[in-house]
Amino acid sequence: MIVAMTAGAPASATEAVLAAARAAGLEARAMSDGHGGALVGIHGTLDVEALRLSGIAGIQPKHKPYMLASREHRPHAPTVVKVGDVRIGGGRPVVMAGPCVVEGRETLLETAIAVKVAGADMLRGGAFKPRTSPYSFQGLGEAGLQHLAAARDATGLPVVTEVMEPESVDLVANYADMLQIGSRNMANFPLLRRAGQTRKPILLKRGFSATVEEWLMSAEYILAAGNPNVILCERGIRGFDPAFRFTLDLNAVPLLRELTHLPVIVDPSHGTGKRSLVSRMAIAGLAAGADGLMIEVHPDPEVAMCDGLQTITPADLSAIIRSGRALQTALLDAALDQDKSLVELPVALSA
Amino acid sequence: MIVAMTAGAPASATEAVLAAARAAGLEARAMSDGHGGALVGIHGTLDVEALRLSGIAGIQPKHKPYMLASREHRPHAPTVVKVGDVRIGGGRPVVMAGPCVVEGRETLLETAIAVKVAGADMLRGGAFKPRTSPYSFQGLGEAGLQHLAAARDATGLPVVTEVMEPESVDLVANYADMLQIGSRNMANFPLLRRAGQTRKPILLKRGFSATVEEWLMSAEYILAAGNPNVILCERGIRGFDPAFRFTLDLNAVPLLRELTHLPVIVDPSHGTGKRSLVSRMAIAGLAAGADGLMIEVHPDPEVAMCDGLQTITPADLSAIIRSGRALQTALLDAALDQDKSLVELPVALSA
Amino acid sequence: MIVAMTAGAPASATEAVLAAARAAGLEARAMSDGHGGALVGIHGTLDVEALRLSGIAGIQPKHKPYMLASREHRPHAPTVVKVGDVRIGGGRPVVMAGPCVVEGRETLLETAIAVKVAGADMLRGGAFKPRTSPYSFQGLGEAGLQHLAAARDATGLPVVTEVMEPESVDLVANYADMLQIGSRNMANFPLLRRAGQTRKPILLKRGFSATVEEWLMSAEYILAAGNPNVILCERGIRGFDPAFRFTLDLNAVPLLRELTHLPVIVDPSHGTGKRSLVSRMAIAGLAAGADGLMIEVHPDPEVAMCDGLQTITPADLSAIIRSGRALQTALLDAALDQDKSLVELPVALSA
Amino acid sequence: MIVAMTAGAPASATEAVLAAARAAGLEARAMSDGHGGALVGIHGTLDVEALRLSGIAGIQPKHKPYMLASREHRPHAPTVVKVGDVRIGGGRPVVMAGPCVVEGRETLLETAIAVKVAGADMLRGGAFKPRTSPYSFQGLGEAGLQHLAAARDATGLPVVTEVMEPESVDLVANYADMLQIGSRNMANFPLLRRAGQTRKPILLKRGFSATVEEWLMSAEYILAAGNPNVILCERGIRGFDPAFRFTLDLNAVPLLRELTHLPVIVDPSHGTGKRSLVSRMAIAGLAAGADGLMIEVHPDPEVAMCDGLQTITPADLSAIIRSGRALQTALLDAALDQDKSLVELPVALSA
Repeated sequence: MIVAMTAGAPASATEAVLAAARAAGLEARAMSDGHGGALVGIHGTLDVEALRLSGIAGIQPKHKPYMLASREHRPHAPTVVKVGDVRIGGGRPVVMAGPCVVEGRETLLETAIAVKVAGADMLRGGAFKPRTSPYSFQGLGEAGLQHLAAARDATGLPVVTEVMEPESVDLVANYADMLQIGSRNMANFPLLRRAGQTRKPILLKRGFSATVEEWLMSAEYILAAGNPNVILCERGIRGFDPAFRFTLDLNAVPLLRELTHLPVIVDPSHGTGKRSLVSRMAIAGLAAGADGLMIEVHPDPEVAMCDGLQTITPADLSAIIRSGRALQTALLDAALDQDKSLVELPVALSA
Repeated sequence: MIVAMTAGAPASATEAVLAAARAAGLEARAMSDGHGGALVGIHGTLDVEALRLSGIAGIQPKHKPYMLASREHRPHAPTVVKVGDVRIGGGRPVVMAGPCVVEGRETLLETAIAVKVAGADMLRGGAFKPRTSPYSFQGLGEAGLQHLAAARDATGLPVVTEVMEPESVDLVANYADMLQIGSRNMANFPLLRRAGQTRKPILLKRGFSATVEEWLMSAEYILAAGNPNVILCERGIRGFDPAFRFTLDLNAVPLLRELTHLPVIVDPSHGTGKRSLVSRMAIAGLAAGADGLMIEVHPDPEVAMCDGLQTITPADLSAIIRSGRALQTALLDAALDQDKSLVELPVALSA
Repeated sequence: MIVAMTAGAPASATEAVLAAARAAGLEARAMSDGHGGALVGIHGTLDVEALRLSGIAGIQPKHKPYMLASREHRPHAPTVVKVGDVRIGGGRPVVMAGPCVVEGRETLLETAIAVKVAGADMLRGGAFKPRTSPYSFQGLGEAGLQHLAAARDATGLPVVTEVMEPESVDLVANYADMLQIGSRNMANFPLLRRAGQTRKPILLKRGFSATVEEWLMSAEYILAAGNPNVILCERGIRGFDPAFRFTLDLNAVPLLRELTHLPVIVDPSHGTGKRSLVSRMAIAGLAAGADGLMIEVHPDPEVAMCDGLQTITPADLSAIIRSGRALQTALLDAALDQDKSLVELPVALSA
Repeated sequence: MIVAMTAGAPASATEAVLAAARAAGLEARAMSDGHGGALVGIHGTLDVEALRLSGIAGIQPKHKPYMLASREHRPHAPTVVKVGDVRIGGGRPVVMAGPCVVEGRETLLETAIAVKVAGADMLRGGAFKPRTSPYSFQGLGEAGLQHLAAARDATGLPVVTEVMEPESVDLVANYADMLQIGSRNMANFPLLRRAGQTRKPILLKRGFSATVEEWLMSAEYILAAGNPNVILCERGIRGFDPAFRFTLDLNAVPLLRELTHLPVIVDPSHGTGKRSLVSRMAIAGLAAGADGLMIEVHPDPEVAMCDGLQTITPADLSAIIRSGRALQTALLDAALDQDKSLVELPVALSA
């Protein structure tokens, strides 16, 4: 159940609800309602009325299994995650770009400058890489993290990079502005719990065969551990057609709008596996309502150490960003010009 | 192999190549190259040079298994299919809308007028319906076709409707402007062959578990039987997430641009199965480069006899069309304003 | 609803129920309960009690959407389909074997004799073949049917062959003992209805992306049209692993035992797509409880005109049949030797 | 490449090859060929002949990407993993049974005795459980491990239990005889590497959407880290039919026989998700050639804390084991009685 506290209720009122729940053996957690008010999520049923606690505005007895991640939890205030000066979920789509893997300090710096010039908001790059083969290059490790930090210092772009195991969360968090949990680790619950114990923003990629509900339950692990800064990233699901590495599931984007208050971004690089499809699917992702894009970019994709087939150039990125901005303006104007049925289009286009 | 005839070669030259191929026991077919020239597709290898035939400009020995449907066959002239005054594939997206099933003359006429006012270019509606259960309503049959013809006469909208078996092709073709072959019949080869023997435009929906290559091979059946007027319709693939009836595979749209000269449209109604996702996925389909949309519309979706959960209102349709037009203009302007990398965006946006 | 008639009720009592249902605008059909009694399946709800009809033993108001195919319809009498002297579903597994496609009279006869010697009960072979490419060999047509009939006359093996369109049902039924409806046509409803109008046994293959419920609904089309002689054939579903052409879904076999009274056979040739896996998966299919096997066999698989990669030799078939008989005897003995939990194993092993 | 050492070559010869490879910057690892000889797997190409090293019997330049796991690596000596006195892969199928999750000392002991009486060879049970919801019971942790050890001491059954993160490998290895890596962690590479640094047998479950090749690459991580004791467990893949929790992919069993020397077992509990299907699919798994079974068993499945719907009783288990033994004897007898085509049936039935 979810208990909404009255607007001016003191913190002690919220604490009393939490204490009552825990005394009854139920897990409970307080969260913001996004408007300055407080909510208490309780996993189970507590006879709140019988307890005669003060400061309670209302009770929602039934909800999704992912109670903290659910839209019902914050119906009027989608979550905006701040990464440095970048706001993810605030209406203006955000672009994260960079190489699949950090190859060295010079190449990374060159790429970082190029993606910044192209209009990107954040820099991505892998220092610890999950590779199918034990014999493939596994990333530069901490040296890669240092290069990312140096590229951030040089360009001002916040950096996002993957963390693969609970033991490395602190190390990666020392360098990065946002931690990525990759597709293969979406159901790595010890890692999710550990990520939930930091306050760093977490980019949670969808497992390539996870249902939307399973994905939200993984987000719930992070939220329930105390970290509200979760961003979801659709990156393609596994399908039956060998023509595609993965199938970008854009249906998930408008569905997530209905189900959750968390921001959603799209990764057309992994979602297609094919360079020539990335531009179109990036624009389609924004049209579907995404809050941003994550794209693999390399100055010379043909020689990239990893994922070259799906990597685009900075020039391609620049074209995507320009088209994306034009698209957003056009859809926004069309919405303002129309009747109620369009005003209900997702937040990203109405702000 | 594909044999290109010289620009001014007489018809007799083309016929000589066809005859030589057939004499060698190979299937062969002449087609337009879209620029006034002629091509001959030969299934197999013919030693053309040894034959000293005249009027041959060049030979392409290797090609896709779907030689007539392949982009190589018409690299510079995407196919435009004309249905009445409507041009599909000509750069301007086309919208086909209407009820899942024709329920009666009055309701259909009301819907036809409503979708025309909303901006649709064509009317859709089922007279023969493939239903999972033998006990479900199977459509009005020929009476439904008559209602469609009446609605066309009243509104001027060309009509598209499904044909389910070879024996019915002539009957349906008597009433409809375009024949639809549904997802469950994509690999109904006798039906494809029969449809190829008419000259009616054919809307070929993707089988919900067909690969893109299998889909193009089905188009090849129609082309090889002599009918060049084929439009492909992506309508969702079967996936593992019970949250969706089907998963709209927009990756297929830009891939088809590379592989074929045939027009491609998107059906976000079946591709989501959920009314609230249709608008966003329609716009995303256009952003992915589709030549048009097919959408289920009913004046009162809650009482529709079929597929009500995925059917939208005429007001929703109007909003989609306005947003779609704005999107196309914006993407076109962005493309004109940019460097070469964007000029190569698909035809639909550059014309 | 399903209405069970009393044991000795006259035909007129059953007809009265049918008439009452139809008078109420409901589809209704009489069927045997497998024990000499009669049942009436009514699609909808009829207030039978108010009608005071005689000869009614009981009413089952709720049932599966496939009421005629459901186990509830014949809980104690699984259907046995007779094809010539062969009984499918009677406890003893049945083996159908032969080439993918009929290549010629001599080769077919040689194969027919070889599979008979190996222990097969029926001969399979395609005269009309659904091929992905319009340029592939499509079968010999009626000549192929004649060869099949000749092979039957020579060996005594009943023959099963595919029919692809409604118009051909009568032609194929003139020659074949059992009609096969292939995977790509499982949802070809006009074909199902037409097959339901004959009394020939129908082998209904599962669509390679059909759910078990959709498959049973397709069987229901045939049953509802009046033909009770339906056999289901699991032949592999489409999956994500390129290592397999299809994934044989043996889970479906014991599930179908619970859901339907119809016999179930397994096709390990299409279900694996790989010759070296066929033997093991054939035996596994029997262990899962199948009533029989359909296997592609050719005297020289390397030169087979179709599906050679998944075709085995008559010697392989002989080994499979011997192992299969040994397995069945062993499981039956084990069952007789044990407590109730095993006595409830499917019929095929307890008879 | 793989370098085979001559039969009597001294260890120094093998070390010389290893040293030469590493000097050339290539990963290299020595392994037993299963017949007392040595092999060196080198990831890359080394000009061994030019090096004039002694004791080399032959070179295999091309092989699967999983060189240590590949059948080519040990073509004549399938790996047998010993867990206490239990031999997995030695021809006699092994049965691991027990509750999904350890619920308490008394219940576990009761279950352990019951599965031993039923004929099981090993006890399974979860102390650390991966759960989709953060609010579900996550297992008893170390207390659960202690209960497992106590049950082993009381019954003599070796125990297998899951480990979820690298940090816990030593803890779990202190109590368990075999470590399980679950489906959701098949691509948790830090965990695989850490498991490879122990010498404990590792049960590696297939990721529910992993290809067979990806699965073998994960096994390669463990082997390449130095632990040769890997057992593969097929436990069902994710499909499109809501009738099943997962689809048991028995095709994988005979395919793995061709590709790898590692033992393969089958888990029909997760592979079906439905109690009534477990017995049949267990037997089918053995018929497909599996070296053993892992089955969820609880004295009272209806009150099990986890996975009750797919859990069977000890009486069901007893029936499965009896049928399994009968099946194996029958198939072995049939094989001995037949020609070469059956003698090549997998090892599990010929020893």
